[in-house]
Amino acid sequence: MNGGTTMIGDPRLRLHGVIPPLVTPLTDQGDVDARSLARLIGYVLAAGSTGVFVLGSSGEGTSLSDDQRARVLDVARSETAGAATLLAGTLEPSTNRVADLVRQAMKFSVDGLVITAPFYIPPHRNEIDRHFRRLAEMAGQTPVFGYDIPSRVKLKLDGELILELAADGVLAGVKDSSGAELSLRSLVNGRSDRGLDGFSIMTGSEVTVDTAMQLGVDGAVPGLGNVDPAGYVRILALVEAGDLAGARAEQDRLIKLFDIIKAGDRSRVGGASAALGAFKAAVWLLGVIDCPRLAEPAIGLNDAEIAGIRGRMEAAGLL
Amino acid sequence: MNGGTTMIGDPRLRLHGVIPPLVTPLTDQGDVDARSLARLIGYVLAAGSTGVFVLGSSGEGTSLSDDQRARVLDVARSETAGAATLLAGTLEPSTNRVADLVRQAMKFSVDGLVITAPFYIPPHRNEIDRHFRRLAEMAGQTPVFGYDIPSRVKLKLDGELILELAADGVLAGVKDSSGAELSLRSLVNGRSDRGLDGFSIMTGSEVTVDTAMQLGVDGAVPGLGNVDPAGYVRILALVEAGDLAGARAEQDRLIKLFDIIKAGDRSRVGGASAALGAFKAAVWLLGVIDCPRLAEPAIGLNDAEIAGIRGRMEAAGLL
Amino acid sequence: MNGGTTMIGDPRLRLHGVIPPLVTPLTDQGDVDARSLARLIGYVLAAGSTGVFVLGSSGEGTSLSDDQRARVLDVARSETAGAATLLAGTLEPSTNRVADLVRQAMKFSVDGLVITAPFYIPPHRNEIDRHFRRLAEMAGQTPVFGYDIPSRVKLKLDGELILELAADGVLAGVKDSSGAELSLRSLVNGRSDRGLDGFSIMTGSEVTVDTAMQLGVDGAVPGLGNVDPAGYVRILALVEAGDLAGARAEQDRLIKLFDIIKAGDRSRVGGASAALGAFKAAVWLLGVIDCPRLAEPAIGLNDAEIAGIRGRMEAAGLL
Amino acid sequence: MNGGTTMIGDPRLRLHGVIPPLVTPLTDQGDVDARSLARLIGYVLAAGSTGVFVLGSSGEGTSLSDDQRARVLDVARSETAGAATLLAGTLEPSTNRVADLVRQAMKFSVDGLVITAPFYIPPHRNEIDRHFRRLAEMAGQTPVFGYDIPSRVKLKLDGELILELAADGVLAGVKDSSGAELSLRSLVNGRSDRGLDGFSIMTGSEVTVDTAMQLGVDGAVPGLGNVDPAGYVRILALVEAGDLAGARAEQDRLIKLFDIIKAGDRSRVGGASAALGAFKAAVWLLGVIDCPRLAEPAIGLNDAEIAGIRGRMEAAGLL
Repeated sequence: MNGGTTMIGDPRLRLHGVIPPLVTPLTDQGDVDARSLARLIGYVLAAGSTGVFVLGSSGEGTSLSDDQRARVLDVARSETAGAATLLAGTLEPSTNRVADLVRQAMKFSVDGLVITAPFYIPPHRNEIDRHFRRLAEMAGQTPVFGYDIPSRVKLKLDGELILELAADGVLAGVKDSSGAELSLRSLVNGRSDRGLDGFSIMTGSEVTVDTAMQLGVDGAVPGLGNVDPAGYVRILALVEAGDLAGARAEQDRLIKLFDIIKAGDRSRVGGASAALGAFKAAVWLLGVIDCPRLAEPAIGLNDAEIAGIRGRMEAAGLL
Repeated sequence: MNGGTTMIGDPRLRLHGVIPPLVTPLTDQGDVDARSLARLIGYVLAAGSTGVFVLGSSGEGTSLSDDQRARVLDVARSETAGAATLLAGTLEPSTNRVADLVRQAMKFSVDGLVITAPFYIPPHRNEIDRHFRRLAEMAGQTPVFGYDIPSRVKLKLDGELILELAADGVLAGVKDSSGAELSLRSLVNGRSDRGLDGFSIMTGSEVTVDTAMQLGVDGAVPGLGNVDPAGYVRILALVEAGDLAGARAEQDRLIKLFDIIKAGDRSRVGGASAALGAFKAAVWLLGVIDCPRLAEPAIGLNDAEIAGIRGRMEAAGLL
Repeated sequence: MNGGTTMIGDPRLRLHGVIPPLVTPLTDQGDVDARSLARLIGYVLAAGSTGVFVLGSSGEGTSLSDDQRARVLDVARSETAGAATLLAGTLEPSTNRVADLVRQAMKFSVDGLVITAPFYIPPHRNEIDRHFRRLAEMAGQTPVFGYDIPSRVKLKLDGELILELAADGVLAGVKDSSGAELSLRSLVNGRSDRGLDGFSIMTGSEVTVDTAMQLGVDGAVPGLGNVDPAGYVRILALVEAGDLAGARAEQDRLIKLFDIIKAGDRSRVGGASAALGAFKAAVWLLGVIDCPRLAEPAIGLNDAEIAGIRGRMEAAGLL
Repeated sequence: MNGGTTMIGDPRLRLHGVIPPLVTPLTDQGDVDARSLARLIGYVLAAGSTGVFVLGSSGEGTSLSDDQRARVLDVARSETAGAATLLAGTLEPSTNRVADLVRQAMKFSVDGLVITAPFYIPPHRNEIDRHFRRLAEMAGQTPVFGYDIPSRVKLKLDGELILELAADGVLAGVKDSSGAELSLRSLVNGRSDRGLDGFSIMTGSEVTVDTAMQLGVDGAVPGLGNVDPAGYVRILALVEAGDLAGARAEQDRLIKLFDIIKAGDRSRVGGASAALGAFKAAVWLLGVIDCPRLAEPAIGLNDAEIAGIRGRMEAAGLL
């Protein structure tokens, strides 16, 4: 665990800014579209993002094959090298399976690994603890970030456990996609109480970034940041400048834009697919990627639904 | 889809009898213990099982690495060849990921693939439909069985969808671990109404096998069948012989034995680990496997808890 | 608690047969329609029901005012006096509130009270235990039946707790609407193991009455028994006569009839309203009640949907 | 609905400030303790609360009999008359049942009624709409506030529905106890977009009052406001004065105090009882009420647990 211990406090590892959880552009045939991915990385970095997070939930990390994941990691590493932080999700149900993905990601020299609690088999707190410890040991010098996303993993990571793991050098930070403000506050306060200065706290929310930043989180990893990264970058700058009203107006604009996730007809597609489908359709409308298709078996937006999001993008000033 | 179509009606493919979902014996170091696995297969086949199901939920299918899965498939194929049906679980969250495991399993010439709906990303019915169709197409002549296990996948497979997929030659059968009697009845009645004679319906329940058999299911895939396969074989024989009272007495004995899953202290281990830990501890006490350890990060029974299940095994006549 | 103690073993109190959970007929204005209720009671008793259960979930027990409940109890007592068992639901969230309804029901000399665990505030097992003890003490000589309906109360009554309360003379029986076969088996086996001969076990299922009777439950309280009480009476007689195939065919017919609960358009009405609306519409089509309206705020079936259930009733031989 | 219409815009009805949801003090015998209730009202009003909310979830509104509720309303009306707003919960599962409680509350001239969606029977959106319309019609000039508390009602009130009901003069405001920041933001933005100036938005959270106030809600209805009303009053004043850091420090102090809800041993009492038991124990330790007992069947804190909260109260400066 010594690798973990040394990394806490290392300024390189304290995350900050906007790090969009990138969608994974696919071709019509369902292959990873390397050129579109490179353009998407360019798009979000040009807008001021400090890094990218690939193979997370927005990246359809659970939906890509070994080869597809390798392709994504390869492109992302090339496009960010020396310029931006590269975080990689390793979404698998158990320690051994995640370990396979950790090994893969480390071959591409990612800057951080983003790891959920085990899923499929509902784990006990003790088992979650063991899971992160084993994986951090394996990751060595590569920082491990806990990924708290109850809507997918079907459990909320316990804040006390996160802080214990932080204090033991196991976790270098957390991406909190729980949407629960008290969760963020407790993490921020707990970090301060325990002197865990190097520990990163990022919000995964699209809709409460201004308040999260005021509460002291370090940055944001919003799915909608694929579509409008500049908007989130502005929120962070406005909060930092003390212009809370300005930050709120920008957040409110993005809340309205976020309605694009409602364009998919829910009698036809699932809720998660409606959201991912909207993100991909939006960056496709922006000309950033070549095809809005989702990975199997997900069903994306159809033409009429894509037409429906155009108006919301215009209202947000994107088209 | 033609592979699927031809297999319906093929008598080789209609499952029957007891097919235990095998636990995966591990060494103290967490490696797959091939000798213990071979002995376990011998144990359940000697008791009259008609096959084995490896890498399912009881087999910690989501908790093993690529290499570990390959080892399990290799041993299981050797030990069952020519003698018994070999079913393999391919538990992964999405079509592409399952496809990787389907390819792996097919290299070992398994007799059938057992596949759940997608998990992690909650799927729409249309997406579940697409998932099974893509994978059955890939599986070709190898039959695909739907695996309905709401406690893990967090959704109940729709009976109408299963029957549609059966009629289209996509699914060769279903393992129903939902525990819902109406689900089994509807499948049995639906199979009959639609003339889907080759379609297999297996119950995954440990505790309602006698009634399930009376309702017309083809056989059972009970986790407790690792521990007492002969008991389940007897239930099936008794129902077939029309001795319902005898079958019920045997089922009631196994219901009592099933209480071994309550031996694990739930303030220390998860519910799933308590159940799997008890199955492994029981076959370890029986001398069938060499070590009761679970795959990471699961925590199995401790010595005191294992001592606690001994009494229940004695009461059931196993020790 | 002495009242409770004496009643166990009293043969009057051991329930048996079909006891439909009556819907509460309302007028167009939403008042209790006493004449329709009397006719409905006559209809189910003429079919061979041994009693009626009013003010349960099917009776919209949570949706009627004090005065409306009193009216229902008055009519039901008159129409069953000397002829059939009258059970009354007392559906309220807490001990004190249920107590108000227990007092009301006792004024009408009901034969038994049917009481759920507390709802709204999620209770601990110890609190459920206390709830039933307090209420049984108040009920004195009037037997108290536990009402296990997880779909409404959002918890499953623990079987061990039910049996402890039975042994202590608190509960005279249970209506199990959980749909879980293991729950019924454990109750039946536990009753036998503990020598609780006077304890009644009734299934609240519409779709598994034949198997429940084979497992040793005493009778059925099926919502669909409002519509086709004779069918359920036949199932019980066939099981008693040992004609399991005949019982199953009858149950299968009723499973098909039960599809009337799918007639309501779920984009317009809730699932519970679709079911209750279908029951009321069916007995209205049969000419038993004068109006198919539901209690506020529930929305029943519209004309097109009611037309849709006519075919299913014809197929079942009811029209 | 004209009553509703006129009240929107009436400045008397726009809620503001801290309105604690009062616990209901009981005697050792379980009767309403009028003197303790009067003292509790005096305590929170002296601290600067603008009103009180009785018979809500904290008030054990679902756990009191008709007579007990009447006693609470009587005392609360006397103690607040002319001095503070009196809101009354009318917690019952359905329209007709709530109507009985609305009539009761109106006899005591309450200033507002706080009403949840139907529970027990899961309602459709259309049925929730109908529920509020019927009850507002009955309430006439008395404003109706929607009570959004998913942890109890098991559904989240849809924000669009709330705003529609507001626009139609049905709802005068909402108490949002969902804990979801986006819910509050959408209500605040929706109120502004639709020009619903008289519509009140109150947060029911204990732990995010400072951010909620910054977002533009009108006030807070925190259960912990029974214990430390002055703290919440300070938060509101600090936010109004633009001292966000000060408001946050005060909120952080109250977040720590809120840990008193963890003192109850969860193997002995339910989570809701642990929270309510802690609130009552705290105001008992403060000498405000005479007995910390909960209404049947809830089990409150025992002596050791009460001792455990003393330290947290001292740390918060209350003892």
